[in-house]
Amino acid sequence: MGPAVGPAKQVAGEPHAVDRLATLLAEDLTAVDAIIHDYMTSPVGVIPNLAAHLIDAGGKRIRPLITLASARLLGGGGDGPRKLAAAVEFIHSATLLHDDVVDLSSMRRGKKAANVVWGNSASVLVGDFLFARSFNLMVETGDIQVLDILARAASVIAEGEVMQLAAANDADTTRERYMEIVVAKTAALFAAAAKAGAVAAGRAGPEASALETYGRELGLAFQLVDDALDYGGLSATMGKNAGDDFREGKVTLPVIFARDAGDESERGFWRRAMGGERTDDDFYRAQALLKRHNAISRTLDAARTHATAANEALKLLPANAYRDALADLPTFVVERGF
Amino acid sequence: MGPAVGPAKQVAGEPHAVDRLATLLAEDLTAVDAIIHDYMTSPVGVIPNLAAHLIDAGGKRIRPLITLASARLLGGGGDGPRKLAAAVEFIHSATLLHDDVVDLSSMRRGKKAANVVWGNSASVLVGDFLFARSFNLMVETGDIQVLDILARAASVIAEGEVMQLAAANDADTTRERYMEIVVAKTAALFAAAAKAGAVAAGRAGPEASALETYGRELGLAFQLVDDALDYGGLSATMGKNAGDDFREGKVTLPVIFARDAGDESERGFWRRAMGGERTDDDFYRAQALLKRHNAISRTLDAARTHATAANEALKLLPANAYRDALADLPTFVVERGF
Repeated sequence: MGPAVGPAKQVAGEPHAVDRLATLLAEDLTAVDAIIHDYMTSPVGVIPNLAAHLIDAGGKRIRPLITLASARLLGGGGDGPRKLAAAVEFIHSATLLHDDVVDLSSMRRGKKAANVVWGNSASVLVGDFLFARSFNLMVETGDIQVLDILARAASVIAEGEVMQLAAANDADTTRERYMEIVVAKTAALFAAAAKAGAVAAGRAGPEASALETYGRELGLAFQLVDDALDYGGLSATMGKNAGDDFREGKVTLPVIFARDAGDESERGFWRRAMGGERTDDDFYRAQALLKRHNAISRTLDAARTHATAANEALKLLPANAYRDALADLPTFVVERGF
Repeated sequence: MGPAVGPAKQVAGEPHAVDRLATLLAEDLTAVDAIIHDYMTSPVGVIPNLAAHLIDAGGKRIRPLITLASARLLGGGGDGPRKLAAAVEFIHSATLLHDDVVDLSSMRRGKKAANVVWGNSASVLVGDFLFARSFNLMVETGDIQVLDILARAASVIAEGEVMQLAAANDADTTRERYMEIVVAKTAALFAAAAKAGAVAAGRAGPEASALETYGRELGLAFQLVDDALDYGGLSATMGKNAGDDFREGKVTLPVIFARDAGDESERGFWRRAMGGERTDDDFYRAQALLKRHNAISRTLDAARTHATAANEALKLLPANAYRDALADLPTFVVERGF
């Protein structure tokens, strides 16, 4: 799963796109946070404690904001979109908890990962709880179409995660296979979050499809930038999680570009490094090879293409403040990589 | 979660209660198995392979049989109950996969557990997939009431699992706390399986409540017997998983009975053994103490009380072959302990 949105490069004093969206939807977002906290309550103390550790750690709520904006953009009112937005955040949170167990992660959102504090078992089971709660929330909307959208997304996400697991340490992973994984593990939830908002507003037709496309393309841009940032981005200053993908043997697009452009000896390096054991020195060699073949800028170019497609899709929708705010997100997401 | 139903003590040549139910519902059960295999299909090979390893390993399908029988008993026809029955089995299967990761189990249904063959990560993620697929199936029935029942059960199960995790190695676990765990981790799905069948048959009123009670009481009996069998049952011949609860520091009803009836030195043993490290010799001492205090027969007596309550609840329902078959299950479940 894509991690939370990190800090953007931005003009001093200008709020970034996610903050602008959050300001526009401030009342909704407060209500969504109340629903989230209400639904993660349990007499079993580990559950709210572990869930709050993750959920209150400063995630940007980008997915629920997309659901809310999609619904409001199309005139959808009432409590339904708020419950859906909370459900979307729960699905995302459950996936993060399970991801961190699978990846043996030690950090998440700048804090110790929940699996480090409470153990893998608790993370697995509280993830299950949050996932179930997301369905409780969807059921409360009484909207079977929306349940269909998010339940399908949940299957696809799990498939993507298994695909990624199976591809780990496979140095020969193709670009096509990589994109298949990204569509499933990351873009599917962005797409469903946007589409569900439209359907909750009673607009299941072309508007829902346009928003689905917007979400999918935005999600793809998001993940590609994330993968570039894992090697330090263009500036190659190291973010807090940089190197995770390399350490875990995940063959992402920057690696694929560098590998395919490399000579025999470089391909040998990638085969050994991605397929087997990796040292810290290997990571610096990998960064150097990415630089030699412009692999980071090529990845960011690919992300920009998806960001443009996201904005294209929005043109089919009525122009209003919500559409404008959604239109700022793709650029923001791509700018993170610089 | 409760494991699959084991072999019953039975009169030679007489089919046992689950087999009789399976025979009565043979056509439905074949259809349910086809749905299960259809919905566990995925182009990601690990998913069907891992899922089949568990699902085709000879589980008795007791929960889906309860859903089917509940629906048919009330005249519910068509494909809906079959999809629901498959959904119930998926929820159960997902829970088993995650349980085995949490408990570090090495065996399941007489085979290596999936986590041993494919690793913990694959078991977590394929569990997530099956859980999501259960919701896809429920959505296909288009019945929001049924979704509500099973989504609530899923939350309660996860809560029960976390509760059990938190109580592990707590030698002072009370009988009340133990029953709370069992109601949540095991009985909730039996109850939901039965109630969902009734609701799918369009009988959401008193019949659904009666079947919910039947399921809950049957589930309680089932788990209590299972806990007795984990110490060898009354005959103290060791089943294949005997000793697991002791090894995992799970304070179950037999232990609670023996501990509370024991003298100071015995309570000291339980405190040390359940609270800390345990040896094989400790297990034999535990068995001896259970015997001294009739803890196994007292546990089976408690199970029998729940089995009787299950049968009582059935009396509110129309008498027919399905009701008769359901009425045989509680006795069968309790007889496993002898």
